[in-house]
Amino acid sequence: MSTVQDSMIFGNILSTRESAAIWSDKTRTQCYLAFEGALAKSQARLGIIPQRAADEIIQFCLDVRNVDFDDLRQQTELIGYPVLGLVKQVVKHVNETEPGLGEWAHWGATTQDVTDTATVIQLWDTLSLFEKALHHITSSLRSLAERHRSTPMAARSNLQQAVPISFGFKIARLLATFLRHQERLKDVEYRLTVLEFSGAAGTLATLPPTEDRPNLGLECQKELAKNLNLKVPDIAWHTERDRIAEFGSLCAMLTSTCAKFALDVKLMNQTEVGEVSEPFVPHRGSSSTMPQKRNPISCAYITAMASTVRQLSTSLFEAMVEDHERSTGPWEIEWIVLPQISTLTHATLKQTSELIAGLEVHEDAMKKNLDISKGGIVSEAVMMGLGKTLGRQYAHDIVYDLCRKSQEENRQLLDLLCEHDEIKSKLSREELEKFCDPANYLGYSEVMVDRVLKLADAPRNTTRVSLV
Amino acid sequence: MSTVQDSMIFGNILSTRESAAIWSDKTRTQCYLAFEGALAKSQARLGIIPQRAADEIIQFCLDVRNVDFDDLRQQTELIGYPVLGLVKQVVKHVNETEPGLGEWAHWGATTQDVTDTATVIQLWDTLSLFEKALHHITSSLRSLAERHRSTPMAARSNLQQAVPISFGFKIARLLATFLRHQERLKDVEYRLTVLEFSGAAGTLATLPPTEDRPNLGLECQKELAKNLNLKVPDIAWHTERDRIAEFGSLCAMLTSTCAKFALDVKLMNQTEVGEVSEPFVPHRGSSSTMPQKRNPISCAYITAMASTVRQLSTSLFEAMVEDHERSTGPWEIEWIVLPQISTLTHATLKQTSELIAGLEVHEDAMKKNLDISKGGIVSEAVMMGLGKTLGRQYAHDIVYDLCRKSQEENRQLLDLLCEHDEIKSKLSREELEKFCDPANYLGYSEVMVDRVLKLADAPRNTTRVSLV
Amino acid sequence: MSTVQDSMIFGNILSTRESAAIWSDKTRTQCYLAFEGALAKSQARLGIIPQRAADEIIQFCLDVRNVDFDDLRQQTELIGYPVLGLVKQVVKHVNETEPGLGEWAHWGATTQDVTDTATVIQLWDTLSLFEKALHHITSSLRSLAERHRSTPMAARSNLQQAVPISFGFKIARLLATFLRHQERLKDVEYRLTVLEFSGAAGTLATLPPTEDRPNLGLECQKELAKNLNLKVPDIAWHTERDRIAEFGSLCAMLTSTCAKFALDVKLMNQTEVGEVSEPFVPHRGSSSTMPQKRNPISCAYITAMASTVRQLSTSLFEAMVEDHERSTGPWEIEWIVLPQISTLTHATLKQTSELIAGLEVHEDAMKKNLDISKGGIVSEAVMMGLGKTLGRQYAHDIVYDLCRKSQEENRQLLDLLCEHDEIKSKLSREELEKFCDPANYLGYSEVMVDRVLKLADAPRNTTRVSLV
Amino acid sequence: MSTVQDSMIFGNILSTRESAAIWSDKTRTQCYLAFEGALAKSQARLGIIPQRAADEIIQFCLDVRNVDFDDLRQQTELIGYPVLGLVKQVVKHVNETEPGLGEWAHWGATTQDVTDTATVIQLWDTLSLFEKALHHITSSLRSLAERHRSTPMAARSNLQQAVPISFGFKIARLLATFLRHQERLKDVEYRLTVLEFSGAAGTLATLPPTEDRPNLGLECQKELAKNLNLKVPDIAWHTERDRIAEFGSLCAMLTSTCAKFALDVKLMNQTEVGEVSEPFVPHRGSSSTMPQKRNPISCAYITAMASTVRQLSTSLFEAMVEDHERSTGPWEIEWIVLPQISTLTHATLKQTSELIAGLEVHEDAMKKNLDISKGGIVSEAVMMGLGKTLGRQYAHDIVYDLCRKSQEENRQLLDLLCEHDEIKSKLSREELEKFCDPANYLGYSEVMVDRVLKLADAPRNTTRVSLV
Repeated sequence: MSTVQDSMIFGNILSTRESAAIWSDKTRTQCYLAFEGALAKSQARLGIIPQRAADEIIQFCLDVRNVDFDDLRQQTELIGYPVLGLVKQVVKHVNETEPGLGEWAHWGATTQDVTDTATVIQLWDTLSLFEKALHHITSSLRSLAERHRSTPMAARSNLQQAVPISFGFKIARLLATFLRHQERLKDVEYRLTVLEFSGAAGTLATLPPTEDRPNLGLECQKELAKNLNLKVPDIAWHTERDRIAEFGSLCAMLTSTCAKFALDVKLMNQTEVGEVSEPFVPHRGSSSTMPQKRNPISCAYITAMASTVRQLSTSLFEAMVEDHERSTGPWEIEWIVLPQISTLTHATLKQTSELIAGLEVHEDAMKKNLDISKGGIVSEAVMMGLGKTLGRQYAHDIVYDLCRKSQEENRQLLDLLCEHDEIKSKLSREELEKFCDPANYLGYSEVMVDRVLKLADAPRNTTRVSLV
Repeated sequence: MSTVQDSMIFGNILSTRESAAIWSDKTRTQCYLAFEGALAKSQARLGIIPQRAADEIIQFCLDVRNVDFDDLRQQTELIGYPVLGLVKQVVKHVNETEPGLGEWAHWGATTQDVTDTATVIQLWDTLSLFEKALHHITSSLRSLAERHRSTPMAARSNLQQAVPISFGFKIARLLATFLRHQERLKDVEYRLTVLEFSGAAGTLATLPPTEDRPNLGLECQKELAKNLNLKVPDIAWHTERDRIAEFGSLCAMLTSTCAKFALDVKLMNQTEVGEVSEPFVPHRGSSSTMPQKRNPISCAYITAMASTVRQLSTSLFEAMVEDHERSTGPWEIEWIVLPQISTLTHATLKQTSELIAGLEVHEDAMKKNLDISKGGIVSEAVMMGLGKTLGRQYAHDIVYDLCRKSQEENRQLLDLLCEHDEIKSKLSREELEKFCDPANYLGYSEVMVDRVLKLADAPRNTTRVSLV
Repeated sequence: MSTVQDSMIFGNILSTRESAAIWSDKTRTQCYLAFEGALAKSQARLGIIPQRAADEIIQFCLDVRNVDFDDLRQQTELIGYPVLGLVKQVVKHVNETEPGLGEWAHWGATTQDVTDTATVIQLWDTLSLFEKALHHITSSLRSLAERHRSTPMAARSNLQQAVPISFGFKIARLLATFLRHQERLKDVEYRLTVLEFSGAAGTLATLPPTEDRPNLGLECQKELAKNLNLKVPDIAWHTERDRIAEFGSLCAMLTSTCAKFALDVKLMNQTEVGEVSEPFVPHRGSSSTMPQKRNPISCAYITAMASTVRQLSTSLFEAMVEDHERSTGPWEIEWIVLPQISTLTHATLKQTSELIAGLEVHEDAMKKNLDISKGGIVSEAVMMGLGKTLGRQYAHDIVYDLCRKSQEENRQLLDLLCEHDEIKSKLSREELEKFCDPANYLGYSEVMVDRVLKLADAPRNTTRVSLV
Repeated sequence: MSTVQDSMIFGNILSTRESAAIWSDKTRTQCYLAFEGALAKSQARLGIIPQRAADEIIQFCLDVRNVDFDDLRQQTELIGYPVLGLVKQVVKHVNETEPGLGEWAHWGATTQDVTDTATVIQLWDTLSLFEKALHHITSSLRSLAERHRSTPMAARSNLQQAVPISFGFKIARLLATFLRHQERLKDVEYRLTVLEFSGAAGTLATLPPTEDRPNLGLECQKELAKNLNLKVPDIAWHTERDRIAEFGSLCAMLTSTCAKFALDVKLMNQTEVGEVSEPFVPHRGSSSTMPQKRNPISCAYITAMASTVRQLSTSLFEAMVEDHERSTGPWEIEWIVLPQISTLTHATLKQTSELIAGLEVHEDAMKKNLDISKGGIVSEAVMMGLGKTLGRQYAHDIVYDLCRKSQEENRQLLDLLCEHDEIKSKLSREELEKFCDPANYLGYSEVMVDRVLKLADAPRNTTRVSLV
């Protein structure tokens, strides 16, 4: 076992069953077979290979259990790549029906055609998992934003309490970001889901024109794309890897937003703050020495996974710097990085989804923390409130003095206001209480929540309009 | 001087005058002033601040020469951020007209509103430079692809000669990638060009509703966005930095594609290959010891800049992990990275543009290299050609033997074919020459070139259709 | 201006005058001249070049004001590298004395010999700045650790209060890390301070043996190293860049430790925690909207700079992957990265040094926070204390129950202990108070502080013993 | 399966059996048990826990097969960390002997003490694997450098042929770098092999002094370190992770040097260059379409693995930025990264070792390539040779003209020299041939090879001398 993601112990934390299934030996090989089968089907239809060859090839390719994996491993270690070893198995199978017939397998294709197309299929499946997780996340965020549309809490700027906001506002901000990510996911999917099939150097030279079909190679490409439900490539992309790198960027952005949320949760979950807790599961986050503790364990993992994904995404940019028509090393970066970045990202999204869905919100602690400054946090509101009666500048000077006094004497600003001769002659304690209530100084928090919720509810045009 | 990009000696190589101008102290401050001026204008119109205050503020903000930069530097070093120091100068100016009037400056805004909006404007200007450079690049690539639509050369896979392609095909592949980048640039621009204006914690609490205007704060936001030609934000994005990170990804992708091309040029420019040279400029790429040499100097710089951009783009993902409503450190990552990543990317695009436009293509060397294998590179074509006459399997066996013989005896495959009894009885030397000519084995190179050229010529719908 | 580090406004925050001076055009060119002058001196001594040529060369090289920088810039933009342009100026100067004499300048050297040696000198000067800053940091940490050797505060694990520690213990841990960094700095310095001088391909072929001097080239190399106070290289390192990458790792490690400290300060500085503040400077960290705030501005910058340094250090690993004898791109990565990583690291160290030296420690807040759990934080100590009297298991059960009661009823554990029939019959309130005082449960905090202080005071053998 | 390193198909390429074994669930758990067993032993000896408790604990810890892994997985998924779940199993086992006795297990330790110490042991084992691989690498390089001490080939600068070197010189340069790496490995090992044992917050508060043992906790720490053959820590390093980051840097440097060599091999292996081939293994590097090809498959994998390692090493710098006494996320970065970076690095070293050991060197191709410039590559030598007879300047002018003529007329410089009236009157063809033979213009290549070989042979003082 070379990685902790494939550990029996940590596997379900740092990966997920669904995403791991996509990147298994079995699924990867199945994707290869899907390509070879669809290729044979397409070529038989166009008269490039005999129908009976296609039939045999397709039959073998239907079931991954036909593959001798031990032989495949040996061939891969020898040759360096698995495709040739797999094709040999196909050929052998077909030749058993009719000697020589197997040579029609893999006709006109090159190793990278198969591997890249398989990768596209695996990435598309991965994107579907992401999409599902994003759907859960945005749904939970919607409920949370709605529920806490007006729950007052302290905003923090530079980790200092600033002015009040509503907790729903905080959540709506996050929701808006995830809505943008959903849009990005569609952009990436649109550009990524493209067939690779163009032969050794990208020219499809092994499928030459025939008299009646001057573009036979291209017709075959089109037919294959149709059979695999992928787009036809404008031109070979064996060494043009922007699509793959873009997928990596998406992973980095998705997980970074999760890590931003995890950071906020960690901070709000501090002993001294206590405004939220991770979903309660008995024993979760226990300490071996301090029984009273409940650690924000999901946040810790989300943080760590996001950090790793971010660095791996850079490797995919480096993998774009490929030599000539088929590269010597950069391509293999993708082989290492893609399974890992995909599973880490899915695990991050999933844990974030659960974290949001079960988040415990302690409104009382939020209220208590708002009171730490003894009213200082609403001094702006008080100033503006008094200004209407006392004049803006004069109100500012009085409130400024009383705020200082409140800090020095450790007393509530409200009490000092009520004691102030000039103020108490003009405003009742009740009126002053209203000025001092953070819930009355949420600005447009609630309107903004509504704005984002509306956005989230809008029917989303998921079919991307091509710009070209 | 802390960086080589601002060196007098290297500045024009590792940066560009145009992009450096965008990130100068002067331009940045000008953008701040633009915000403050537009804010005053908007707020006067909505009756939030007195018109005469707005007039004075706007007057000061019209000309960056009104700013005392030495004072600004001192204030920034003291406070840590420049905006407050600048606002103080505005206030002081306005107060000179009427004491107290200056306090209406920067009304309801927070430091980050100004800084972020300035950054958006600077990034938009940067994107325009990128767009211009991309236009030059794609134009040059179009000409090059057209000109060399049928120029045969060896494709390389794993740095081994594979089969022939046309040089135009190689270039068209690159062109297709840059067309996708143009599309991405539009996506990024669409999401990025958004105003930041929402006050200390994002709630616009300092612009409370009035009786007749229940959403005065939001109206002010809308008016300001209109005045600055930016989109209205759904909600504050002080600590939601996906848009900025996405800009960084674009830079990484753009420069990585440039580096891919530079790599191919470096390889083709090797003494032993000699297929292209960098544009000839007397003394360019000279060596201090080896007068005969001409180094691929632009390729070297493109490579180095792309590598740096790639790493810096990761910092922008990390900068997404921001705490609470206004962050404590991650935001400042952007301050360091954005000017640098922007100028490096523009310098990379510009040098790539010049490299493509002036690239010297040595068709004779391409031809010579095709001949290294004495015909081996077209053995596939020969096999297919002979197959029609001799039968596929038999043709394969003969060609395979002759190829080996050709290597061992260091003779041309063509000559061996002409000497072969069975072959010469069926095919003339002329016919065999045709099979052996790499120019006749370009596959669909030319058709694919045409396909990409057509794509490049298509009118591009530059107005993005919102998905929401 | 392409970077914020060279901004008039931000320059002194994100860089330092001293480090910026090292990487200026002037100093770099001065280093080139130092090489050329020392080379001439060495070669005249060995009879390789005429003494009168050396005299003229040395004279020019003594004063960087002899350099025509405008011409140098033009030549650099043309050729791609500055050395040849500079050598031309030397040659021209010497030729004015005697035509043709100038050709003895730069004898046997190649561009990279000059550039690399200059870089080594600049890096060595940079390491001296680091060393000075580390000395300040460790001195301040020593005082701080001593002063707060016994100041109790809450340890935090997963951002949850754990058990008490002393603040001095926290600081001593950091001090121990910086002591290791001082050791690392010496290791890096030892390996880095090596001359580069071996000609075009590293073989010194242009300095052939003479009859009486069979190793003239190597003698010249040795003499030059002596004149420049550098070590003789075992072999050319034009494309072996481990030493440079190792310098980058050191920068990443130094700044990451600074960032760890800044993180702790940011967290302790939170409104809800309030245990430390950044050094007080009037207006420092002010907000444009919230006058009561004092932002941890230095921590923010330290965080951001460390993040950037970390990514740039990776570029230096990539720069190790150089082609053949003189590379085509990777080398130039160093040109971009080294000035920046050096100045950012020095600025980070300097700001950390000032932060530590002036840190305001609020012992009262530390005490107050220890009390948040109403005694829960010392429950372990209480258990152990009571155990001696009541038996371990029985003590555990009682304390466990009382802790829960304390939380539920929001009362002090001490009071509950004093009210407990069995306990109060055996122990006085005074004795119980002692068990509940966090200051009595610091474990070996103080001994460990002493251990690290002793280490810091130990005379350090700064001369590294070679392992070879 | 979440990663390709744990794929049945790719596992032996992108990882190694030996390194994977170190990071398996079994070995990791075994290391945990080793800690718990040694702790019990130490504490019984010091009278902290009963001997009969220790005996039972030790017995359980001796054999990893005592562990119920399925239970361990469930507990880990629940709690978030495996140590508590494992301790529960130990406790349960010991309690079966005597109820309550099991509580002495894990006495005074915290989860991270166990995990970190296990990690140190695993990293030390990993370093031993690296050391072994480095030994093979340097041995092979020594043979290769010796064998080709005088084999002439073209040096390349900017991928242009420069002057001749010997192939042994190229190899010796690499050898010198690996010698430095061996030194670095020892530095890292020296700093890394330190015990972690200090309890919840690092103060060992749960092991309070007794009357006769005022430093019982520290004595226990010392005893445990001795039993585990590790160094005593100066102070807790739960959140001081410089040692781990330094290990990561070593991995990045090691693999980057491997990638540099792989790059040179790839370039020398090009069809147009052909100077070396990867070790011949039948079918290795075969293409599915182009039977004549032999791909540099090991170089490709080395390149890709090095790129990934480099990025992962940066994550370890980020993991240094840990909060307070026990961190919330950064620590888990190490869990993900360390197994992977270790196995990738070992795989890279091993493949590099095999590549070097079996490298096929084609001296004839090296000679042929030296001839590409028709003598231009030795023009410097010719100039210097003729200079003695004809005068330096005059010789320069003649050779310069003849070089140009040689290029234009595609003739050998030697022939032109022999035809030149003035030259042929003074020098015989035989003498001129000597000037033109690249083998006579290797400079100090051979002496430098000897210098490095001597260095490699020197007995290495592997015991590091402490600087403190």
